[in-house]
Amino acid sequence: MAKNRDTKPLIKAQTLKGFRDYLSAPMQVREHLMEVARDVFRLYGFSPIETPALEYSEILLGKGGEETDKQLFRFKDQGGRDVALRFDLTVPLARFVAQHYNELVFPFKRYHIGTVWRAENPQRGRFREFMQCDFDVIGTRSKRADVETVLVIHDLFQALGFERFTIRVNHRKVLTGIIESLGLAVDPVPVLRSLDKLEKQGPEKVLAELVKRAELSKSQAEQMLDCVVGLSSLRGDNQKVLSRLREQLQSSSQGLEGLTWLEEIVGVAQAVGAEPRVQIDIAIARGLDYYTGTVYETILDELPEIGSVCSGGRYDNLAELYSRQELPGVGASLGLDRLVAAMAELELLKTQQTVSSVFIPCFSDDYYPAYVTLAKQLREKHFVVEVYPEAIRLGKQLRYAERRGFQIAVIAGDEEFHRDVWQVKDLVERSSSEVASENLVDCLETMKSP
Amino acid sequence: MAKNRDTKPLIKAQTLKGFRDYLSAPMQVREHLMEVARDVFRLYGFSPIETPALEYSEILLGKGGEETDKQLFRFKDQGGRDVALRFDLTVPLARFVAQHYNELVFPFKRYHIGTVWRAENPQRGRFREFMQCDFDVIGTRSKRADVETVLVIHDLFQALGFERFTIRVNHRKVLTGIIESLGLAVDPVPVLRSLDKLEKQGPEKVLAELVKRAELSKSQAEQMLDCVVGLSSLRGDNQKVLSRLREQLQSSSQGLEGLTWLEEIVGVAQAVGAEPRVQIDIAIARGLDYYTGTVYETILDELPEIGSVCSGGRYDNLAELYSRQELPGVGASLGLDRLVAAMAELELLKTQQTVSSVFIPCFSDDYYPAYVTLAKQLREKHFVVEVYPEAIRLGKQLRYAERRGFQIAVIAGDEEFHRDVWQVKDLVERSSSEVASENLVDCLETMKSP
Repeated sequence: MAKNRDTKPLIKAQTLKGFRDYLSAPMQVREHLMEVARDVFRLYGFSPIETPALEYSEILLGKGGEETDKQLFRFKDQGGRDVALRFDLTVPLARFVAQHYNELVFPFKRYHIGTVWRAENPQRGRFREFMQCDFDVIGTRSKRADVETVLVIHDLFQALGFERFTIRVNHRKVLTGIIESLGLAVDPVPVLRSLDKLEKQGPEKVLAELVKRAELSKSQAEQMLDCVVGLSSLRGDNQKVLSRLREQLQSSSQGLEGLTWLEEIVGVAQAVGAEPRVQIDIAIARGLDYYTGTVYETILDELPEIGSVCSGGRYDNLAELYSRQELPGVGASLGLDRLVAAMAELELLKTQQTVSSVFIPCFSDDYYPAYVTLAKQLREKHFVVEVYPEAIRLGKQLRYAERRGFQIAVIAGDEEFHRDVWQVKDLVERSSSEVASENLVDCLETMKSP
Repeated sequence: MAKNRDTKPLIKAQTLKGFRDYLSAPMQVREHLMEVARDVFRLYGFSPIETPALEYSEILLGKGGEETDKQLFRFKDQGGRDVALRFDLTVPLARFVAQHYNELVFPFKRYHIGTVWRAENPQRGRFREFMQCDFDVIGTRSKRADVETVLVIHDLFQALGFERFTIRVNHRKVLTGIIESLGLAVDPVPVLRSLDKLEKQGPEKVLAELVKRAELSKSQAEQMLDCVVGLSSLRGDNQKVLSRLREQLQSSSQGLEGLTWLEEIVGVAQAVGAEPRVQIDIAIARGLDYYTGTVYETILDELPEIGSVCSGGRYDNLAELYSRQELPGVGASLGLDRLVAAMAELELLKTQQTVSSVFIPCFSDDYYPAYVTLAKQLREKHFVVEVYPEAIRLGKQLRYAERRGFQIAVIAGDEEFHRDVWQVKDLVERSSSEVASENLVDCLETMKSP
């Protein structure tokens, strides 16, 4: 292309620190993930909603802790309103349910795929803008809603093509029950918060933190940690974990109550053949304080180091800051961007530079209407087709097609139109053959990649 | 649900002025529209991209005119950077292409569906946050890229189920040529901007504006308007319009050049059978100054009053502010939110409160695993299935199913399981029958809505 001769200074084309563009290839992966997720959510009767990116700051402040408040993109709008960009999809859901309470049918099952913003320090793959993909059931205390959450996660990862993944489940009351059963009279919240770091930081650091943050004596902390590590090591044998917990929690009514939830999940997972992927793991606590019941994490068995790719849990009261209605619920959130990276690493994606598959070069301007007519026929058969716009050198056109990732090229000029045939070129195998016009569509159908 | 007894003051659950939530029903329509659009774009070889919601303000300022600058949601971020929310997807595309020039293959065909923000006065259906859905081809001066733009619009509306729509096309050089052929030595830009209001404001107001803004004498303005109104009245007979233009533009090389573009579009549209929906309309100019070639508008024949639902055109140089590369291109933008409203009005959508279709009440807790197992089998056949989580009164569960828009309920308790049958209830027809377990899936398949 010609260069622009104008010499006025250019504006530097750059994205903001911590922000990024998605080029076609990764964006196609992202779209694929979102489509699969939507499909699974819909099959379970979840419906989509959308909320604004901007909210009144008072809606968002103080909901995710001090850290999140500091990370808010917050400003005054033209009308002097104190506004901010949402930092997750849960707080907007709470506001949404309170605001539209009378228009909704409960249990309310919604999914929401949307962008959120956090002014984090953009280091090591942390971005300031990312996608969340949440699903929740609001307005029921039934254990079956929790069971369903686990089944949705299960079907989701199966549909995405993962063969080896593990959904780890726990119940916060089981952990509180263990504290109780050990006779430790402490606030369970900091204990749970410390235990949540077991996998990432190891037992020694957690021990130190239990003493420092949770105000346990060293021997109490050791006792607690021993019990949790011991139970966690049984991971993979749900029945054994359940029976050990039943013994341990005899004296804790809270613990026993938590246990019935895990039993329900394991029971139903077994009934539908999902159990091999569902493991009770007593070391899972989730850092977030608002979970009050079951908690979930999902680990890719081949990439455990990237951490949980789908996490969630049950909460007692979603919208207490906005409504006098008590709204218990359960849900989980899929880490889309982390999954895009994981799928690339596990080669679960056909790397394709484009969505296209049949390329029709413009061999001669005279036949352009014929090329477009063929393209139309093929698109009706759901082929992805592109006709090159200009009759430049064929080699150049085919190079373009290869760079774009097209699989097949069909070519015709004077001679071919005269004899009513097309040259069919397999751009991957680099083979070529001549096909009669009347057989072309059938021929391409057989070449179609599955 | 129980009321929350806490009496601390609530935060008012409200969206910002000019912003709105999408509840499930309209959101399903929106998702449907986006899915159809993505499908059509992909079939033509367009690939998706995404850019950040926030950009450096200098990237966005001065690109859409003074009005747009005033409407920017602009602020200083935590690092003191002057940032703003994007107000369209075209300016980010320009920045994107300049920034990633060396990674892209040209002609670069991208689509982008995303949210944009403008602090407009939120009156009469104007919102401050809305979706845009753009597709463009960058880096080619070929007329065929313009032809393809028209064909994509054509296929898009057909795929959306519209039977009666018209794509109006014009070329700015044809209008400039008319000015030239009438011997009017004026700046064509304000003339075109005035003419663009012909359909909305009528000839008298346009006449006044031509005199006031475009500095034409009254008789010159009348001459210009007569010519355009005369040619526009031939709308629907492309060949007649073309031959009249050929006469009119004899003395204007610019006008004749513009004419060849319209001839190419009409010619190919005819070849692929799209011509009945494509009309040359000499009164279409598009208000935006950056269009330099073809321009498009799309009218729903049954709802012309809502204006164009898909508009676009050709521009000479997309990224001149960021790059010395000259990047000509052509594209169009689908008005998603306007279409959601139009489709509702034309009843092109089955109004469904949910995506679900088979409801399994929890008649008895004992059989919950059996319900879930049936649900799993049906989802594998791509039924949308929901199992109610609690064994509350059947009537209440069925009322929930009806409110959610389920079509079928399948019910079984002790007696049914004993006899190995299911009660199948058509919730729409309000009929009911008993079906043997082994025939259930087949029976539901035949009831499946198409």
